[in-house]
Amino acid sequence: MALIVHKYGGTSMGSTERIRNVAKRVAKWWRAGHQMVVVPSAMSGETNRLLALAKDLMPDARSPEALRELDMIASTGEQVSVGLLSLALQAEGLQAVSYAGWQVPIKTDSAYTKARISAIDDARVRADLAAGKVVIVTGFQGIDGDGHITTLGRGGSDTSAVAVAAAMKADECLIYTDVDGVYTTDPRIVPEARRLSSISFEEMLEMASLGSKVLQIRSVEFAGKYRVPLRVLSSFTPWDIDLDEEAKSGTLITYEEDDKMEQAVVSGIAFNRDEAKVTVLGVPDRPGIAYQILGAVAEANIDVDVIIQNVSNDGKTDFSFTVPRSDYGRVLDLLKASVAPAVGASSVIGDNRICKVSIVGIGMKSHVGVAAKMFRSLSEEGINIQMISTSEIKTSVVIDEKYMELAVRALHRAFELDGQPT
Amino acid sequence: MALIVHKYGGTSMGSTERIRNVAKRVAKWWRAGHQMVVVPSAMSGETNRLLALAKDLMPDARSPEALRELDMIASTGEQVSVGLLSLALQAEGLQAVSYAGWQVPIKTDSAYTKARISAIDDARVRADLAAGKVVIVTGFQGIDGDGHITTLGRGGSDTSAVAVAAAMKADECLIYTDVDGVYTTDPRIVPEARRLSSISFEEMLEMASLGSKVLQIRSVEFAGKYRVPLRVLSSFTPWDIDLDEEAKSGTLITYEEDDKMEQAVVSGIAFNRDEAKVTVLGVPDRPGIAYQILGAVAEANIDVDVIIQNVSNDGKTDFSFTVPRSDYGRVLDLLKASVAPAVGASSVIGDNRICKVSIVGIGMKSHVGVAAKMFRSLSEEGINIQMISTSEIKTSVVIDEKYMELAVRALHRAFELDGQPT
Repeated sequence: MALIVHKYGGTSMGSTERIRNVAKRVAKWWRAGHQMVVVPSAMSGETNRLLALAKDLMPDARSPEALRELDMIASTGEQVSVGLLSLALQAEGLQAVSYAGWQVPIKTDSAYTKARISAIDDARVRADLAAGKVVIVTGFQGIDGDGHITTLGRGGSDTSAVAVAAAMKADECLIYTDVDGVYTTDPRIVPEARRLSSISFEEMLEMASLGSKVLQIRSVEFAGKYRVPLRVLSSFTPWDIDLDEEAKSGTLITYEEDDKMEQAVVSGIAFNRDEAKVTVLGVPDRPGIAYQILGAVAEANIDVDVIIQNVSNDGKTDFSFTVPRSDYGRVLDLLKASVAPAVGASSVIGDNRICKVSIVGIGMKSHVGVAAKMFRSLSEEGINIQMISTSEIKTSVVIDEKYMELAVRALHRAFELDGQPT
Repeated sequence: MALIVHKYGGTSMGSTERIRNVAKRVAKWWRAGHQMVVVPSAMSGETNRLLALAKDLMPDARSPEALRELDMIASTGEQVSVGLLSLALQAEGLQAVSYAGWQVPIKTDSAYTKARISAIDDARVRADLAAGKVVIVTGFQGIDGDGHITTLGRGGSDTSAVAVAAAMKADECLIYTDVDGVYTTDPRIVPEARRLSSISFEEMLEMASLGSKVLQIRSVEFAGKYRVPLRVLSSFTPWDIDLDEEAKSGTLITYEEDDKMEQAVVSGIAFNRDEAKVTVLGVPDRPGIAYQILGAVAEANIDVDVIIQNVSNDGKTDFSFTVPRSDYGRVLDLLKASVAPAVGASSVIGDNRICKVSIVGIGMKSHVGVAAKMFRSLSEEGINIQMISTSEIKTSVVIDEKYMELAVRALHRAFELDGQPT
C-alpha cells in the first residue's frame, strides 16, 4: 500500500462529466490498495471568470487590502472543485472528504496573490486516510498567520500538490495534465518535438523556470527540495486503462543523474513570451547600487528574472533586468517615480515585446561550445541577441518576440532534438 | 454615530454594476458618520448554479458527508460576493475588509445545509470598525465545532445579518430587498395589497413562518429574541436618495404594541405552497406515540409545521403533519421504512399538492369570531378545509393548492385589507 497524491488541472475538472471521470480514476487507484490524496484545480475558466468580475470593480488592484480580496474571491474556484470531486467519489461508493487550504491547514506567508507555503499540518489528512477516506485538498491556496486566505499565484495547484506530497512523504505525486509529459520543446511550435520518458530534476527546474508551462516552477523547486517522486502524465487517457500502464506513462522527474543511461547534451528548448525588459540608464557605478534597484523591486513583490549589468563607462553604468510582462507597467512606474531619482540614474527605458529562448541540458556541464553553437545558430537566422544569461545547465537569450518561433525551431534542429518519441 | 448593519439580497448583488451601486449606498451611510457592517448574499443565480453542479454528481445528497460537501460548495457564492463588494468599496475610497463566516467566526451547530448559529465572536469585526473600516461578512454560513463549513439554509443571509446585528448590539439592521416592504399579502396575487409602514414582531414572525418570502423566519426569531431594530426596504431606490428619507422607508418591525396607533383585526394574509402533508393511519393511541413519530422526523432534520392528531376511535388514531415539500419523499420513506412498523401503524399516506393560507393579526387576540369569519369566507368560495391550526395571532388552514389564489383574494377582501398604501 502506497500513499499517492494526484493533481488534476482545470481542464480535467472542466465539467461534471469530467469530474466523474477523475473520480473513477482515483477510485481505481484507491481500490488497488493505495491511500489517496487528490489536489484539483478550479474548473477551467472559473478563475478567469472570478478575476474578471474583480477587475471590473477595481481595474488595477495593487494594495495589500485589494490583493487580499482577490484571494478571497479566486480561492473559491478550488473550493467548489474539491466539494464536487468529493461528491463524485461518494457517488462512486468511496468515503471522501474535502478541505479548503485553511482547513488542513496549509500555512503561507501573507504575500497575497503570490504567497509561499511555510508549513503543512498533515494530522487531519492522515487521520482521514487511516480511516479509509480519500482526502481532497484545494490547490492554489492557504492561510496566513492572521487567518486570511492567500493564493499561491497562477499554477499554484501544482505547488500545493507537491507540497502536500512532501509534507506527507508520499510515495509518488502524479500531475495529471492536458499534455502527456515533458517534451523537448512545445509541439505546437515544433511538430518534431519528442516526449521525454524521464528528465532530471535540474533540467525540469530550468525548463519550468524558462517558460515550459508543463509544471509551475515552484512545484519543481519543492519537489527537488524534498525529493518528491514526481510524474507528469495525461488526464486524457481513459480512466479505466490498466493501472500499471498508467503508472509508467508520462515523464518521470528523476533525482539521480545515472537514472538516465545516455545523456544528451541538450534535453530541451524552453521559451517564454511572458516577460518584459527594463533598463535603468546612467546609474553611478558604486557599491550597493544593484541592491538599491532590485531591493525596491523585490519589496513590491515583483519577480526579477534575467539581470544584466555592463562594465562601467565614465563611472556610469546601465542596469537591465526582465520581469513578468504583467508587472511591466508597475515596475516602470516604480523605477521612474522613486528608484531612478534615488540612485541618481539618468532615465528608465523598457520593452515589453521581447521573449526569452533557452537551451537546457545536464550534458552541457561536460560539453564545451554548447553556448557558442546556440549563438551561431541564431546568427545564421539573422536574430539579434539582446541579453544573455547562463547557468551550469542552461543558456538563455532575450530576443525580439517576433523571432521566437523561428529561434525555437532552429535550436531544436541544431541540437538534434527532432525525432521519434523515446 | 450609530452602528448599522445592511443586508443585500442576491438581486442587489446580481452584477458588478449593481455591486457598485451597493458600495455607493454603503459609502453614503459611512460618510454620514455611521459604523457599517454589510452582509451580502451570493450573486443572484449563483447558489442555484453551484447546487446544480453538485446535484449532477449526486442527485439526492442525504448523508452528513454529502451535505457537508454541499455546504463547502454553496458557501463560495457569498465568499465571492463579499470580496467583490469590498473591492467596490475600496474603489470608492473607503477602507473595507471582507470575512467568510469561519473567519469572524460565526459559530454554528453541525446540521449541514440547515445549521443554526450558536455564537458570534465580534472582536475582529469591532476592531476593524474602530479602525474606520467597513466590514463585509458573508451571509448564509458559519463554521461548526470541528472546523467544517456550514450553511444556514435558503434565505440564511437574513439570519446572518440579524445575528450579527444582535451580537454587536447594532442600532438598526436594514434588509435591502427586491420588495419595498411588508405587504398585507403578496401583490402579485392581490393587486390591492397595501404596504405596512410598521408591523409588530409577532405578526412578522407569523407572516414569515406562514410563507411570506420577505424575511426568513429564523431571522425574525433572532430579531425578536434580541429585539434587533429591523427594517425591510427596497434596494431599487437610487443609491443617492436622501439618507433620512431612505432611513424611514420600507416597513419597520416593532416590539411595542402601542407603536401602532390603530390596530387592525387582521394585518395580513400569508400563504405557502411549499408544504406537503403526510398522515400515519391507524396508530395505537398510547402515551409517547407523538414523540415516537416526530422524534424520528426531527432526528432526520426535517422541519414539521402543522401537526394534527384526532381523537381516537377504537384505540386507534390518525396522525397528520406537514413538512417542507422538498422533504416529502424523504419523510415518506422514513415513515414507511421505520416509523410506521415501530409504532404499529397500519399505513402511511401523503399529499404534496396542498397549500397553507393564514390570516395574521395582533388584533385577533381581542376580537372573537375572526376564525369563524375566515372559515365562512372560504366556504362561500366552495373551498374545502383539510387541516386547521391556530395561535393567538394567526389562523391557518391547509387546502388544495389549486384554490390558493382564490382563497387569498377572498380573505384579503373579507378582512378589508384592500386599499391604498398606508
